[in-house]
Amino acid sequence: MSFRAAVLSIGDELTLGQISERNAGWIAQEFLRRGILVMEHRTVSDDRVAISSAISQLATEVAIIVITGGLGPTDDDLTREALADALGGVALVEDADARESLRKRFEARGRQMPSMNAKQALCPVGAKCIANSNGTAPGLSARIGQAIVFCLPGPPNEMQPMVRDAILPVVDSMVALAGGVSASVCAIHSCGLPESVAAERIRPMMDRSANPLAGTTASGAIVTARIRAFGSTARDASLERAAQEVEKAWAPYVFGRDETTLAQALGEILLRTKDQVAVAESCTGGGIGSFLTSAAGSSSWFGGGWITYSNEMKSRLLGVPPELFELHGAVSESVACAMAIGAAQRANVRFAVSVTGIAGPSGGTESKPVGTVWIAVADRSEKKPSQSVNARCFLFTGDRATIRDRTVRVAVQLVRLAALGKSDVPVLWEVPKNPERTK
Amino acid sequence: MSFRAAVLSIGDELTLGQISERNAGWIAQEFLRRGILVMEHRTVSDDRVAISSAISQLATEVAIIVITGGLGPTDDDLTREALADALGGVALVEDADARESLRKRFEARGRQMPSMNAKQALCPVGAKCIANSNGTAPGLSARIGQAIVFCLPGPPNEMQPMVRDAILPVVDSMVALAGGVSASVCAIHSCGLPESVAAERIRPMMDRSANPLAGTTASGAIVTARIRAFGSTARDASLERAAQEVEKAWAPYVFGRDETTLAQALGEILLRTKDQVAVAESCTGGGIGSFLTSAAGSSSWFGGGWITYSNEMKSRLLGVPPELFELHGAVSESVACAMAIGAAQRANVRFAVSVTGIAGPSGGTESKPVGTVWIAVADRSEKKPSQSVNARCFLFTGDRATIRDRTVRVAVQLVRLAALGKSDVPVLWEVPKNPERTK
Repeated sequence: MSFRAAVLSIGDELTLGQISERNAGWIAQEFLRRGILVMEHRTVSDDRVAISSAISQLATEVAIIVITGGLGPTDDDLTREALADALGGVALVEDADARESLRKRFEARGRQMPSMNAKQALCPVGAKCIANSNGTAPGLSARIGQAIVFCLPGPPNEMQPMVRDAILPVVDSMVALAGGVSASVCAIHSCGLPESVAAERIRPMMDRSANPLAGTTASGAIVTARIRAFGSTARDASLERAAQEVEKAWAPYVFGRDETTLAQALGEILLRTKDQVAVAESCTGGGIGSFLTSAAGSSSWFGGGWITYSNEMKSRLLGVPPELFELHGAVSESVACAMAIGAAQRANVRFAVSVTGIAGPSGGTESKPVGTVWIAVADRSEKKPSQSVNARCFLFTGDRATIRDRTVRVAVQLVRLAALGKSDVPVLWEVPKNPERTK
Repeated sequence: MSFRAAVLSIGDELTLGQISERNAGWIAQEFLRRGILVMEHRTVSDDRVAISSAISQLATEVAIIVITGGLGPTDDDLTREALADALGGVALVEDADARESLRKRFEARGRQMPSMNAKQALCPVGAKCIANSNGTAPGLSARIGQAIVFCLPGPPNEMQPMVRDAILPVVDSMVALAGGVSASVCAIHSCGLPESVAAERIRPMMDRSANPLAGTTASGAIVTARIRAFGSTARDASLERAAQEVEKAWAPYVFGRDETTLAQALGEILLRTKDQVAVAESCTGGGIGSFLTSAAGSSSWFGGGWITYSNEMKSRLLGVPPELFELHGAVSESVACAMAIGAAQRANVRFAVSVTGIAGPSGGTESKPVGTVWIAVADRSEKKPSQSVNARCFLFTGDRATIRDRTVRVAVQLVRLAALGKSDVPVLWEVPKNPERTK
């Protein structure tokens, strides 16, 4: 069997969209690793009735409810009261230990406890306090029907240690009592395949009755298969087989599993071959470099780069012949190639990737609309008689941020494919080249 | 009166915490500007029964339900079916216009429509399709009891234009019919002040009974005041007065309102003074350039840059004297200053900002722990007899991504303060300099 859980987040600033809810996803991932499936996230405003009715409703649907937020000292912190309501209208009474630890906390900072904070030591009859070593708000736990309810403060630096110290041990023992882990998951990431093509290739695994069951999601330029295996028998083996099946169906576009980024995937290849990559960026303005160096340890394989927005900088820093701008324009195959070659030579590394394009919102023309981006990869392999450079033209859709983000991912994937000797595979968003070069 | 709304997001990848839900907050903010209060966000998995029962339940609680996700072509996209269930078990029938626009979309890309995508033209009887110009999934709208339900695709670049084009006009006319806007909001953004200091300075406006009412949120390196004014009488005037009060209390750290980014704010100043800024980045790897060029039109004031990870590149490309690495290390005041001066001269622009630091997770030492970052701003103002350069040392907390993100924002704020002649104000996370230079 598998336990089902829900996360309930409290706060006007969340429902009104003034800040993003980040706790539910974190809690869901911690639970998932233990075989607990979070079925629902719900966020309600600082409203006592809304909170208590959400608790009552979720208690009929899931075995575990984790609530974050609304435990502060101010008038709009109402989780304690709402929990008391959901427990059948019980009273709130002061918890002596919680009161004492609040007092000590303020004393340690040389401050007297404001009277407002006394409220934080209140606990509904039948509930228990959970210690909080990083803030003033203690947590609460209670049983409602078959469900166990945990209330935690909203700030992640207080909430996360409390989940680790007080909730996961309880969850682990529930799972152990029920006979072990009941679900496990794996994500396989790809870049360059259209989602529909990717899904078509693994269709039998996406049938809702399949086990392991796969689903696809597209986020930016990345298409991911998320595989879940249920039941304990041979779970890990069947998950691994399914994962390998997806990897085979999607090769060579697949770059990694789970937390792996495209930057890390490229880095691992370059580390192995002891090669480096440099960048020459126009419309991405440093985004490729920033993405590559988001990988820890990237200094071993990242060869630096140039952000050349103007034609003058492209020529002076990277050696792009000025006449190319006249002949073909800055957004062209020949300029992209010259930028990549110039960067690879000047950084003295094997690979360089260059981009020159029109990210918008303005600057587009009929023949080069917004979203037109040339990406070139130079490869100074010692195995080849001379350096090679290969430019491809893309037409990315979306707004400025989307176009730039897709350009960054595709550029890194093109370097990865070049490093694997797979530069010839088609890549999503590529458009046929205009015959440009005068031979 | 005020309308209440809810946002329902669909997807296993969301409930399991594999990707973050970002649509609900964006929709809530668009609605709030129009006086519609989003009371609840709910996220459920790709489960037909869970989706349809969430729709039915929310339809009894709010006037407007916006659903995102689950409209893709694959078997686990079930929002259409669930909406049909919630409409009382109606049939799904093909919408001829939707089918035709799908066909054309594929044709325009020279591809034949995969049979899987035909499903996307299906519409529950009694519902209507909403055109999607940025993707294959049309949206849907329907009435359930007193509530109006909109179903939209999950990718923000498809969802957001559909909200603007198809939903907000409907919402606006509902509000107009009901007698006008009931709440209005304004956000004031700052960088460099600690949140506690910022909050203390506007304390009276943060009292829960105040109108306009202000709240503060900290996200990354940005502290924001969010002000809400209720009731229609003199609403805009009182909101504007409150906004100006915050701007005065937080000057010169305030850089803009609402959608304005720090990059845009700097860009506006530089456009006015006809100056440019270049970047020389080590630990941020291109992140400052990428952030600056996220602003449309940045080619007017962004002077390009260098991503120099290695000491050798710092010397060869930017002219940093090699002996400085021996004397002070790469993460030092003198290297930061030399990088900034080198970049400003080589880009031939007035301002350059450089960063050199330790983003972690490894590489820290006792005297230079992870998070230590030197940021230097060079200013080649013609008004001054010679160029000036000013380096400051920061100790940022958090993981690699957080340290890099904070570095980027603070670096841009330092250029902005320099451009305003306010380089002398204290900035959050700054640490006292070590006496380093041998005079």
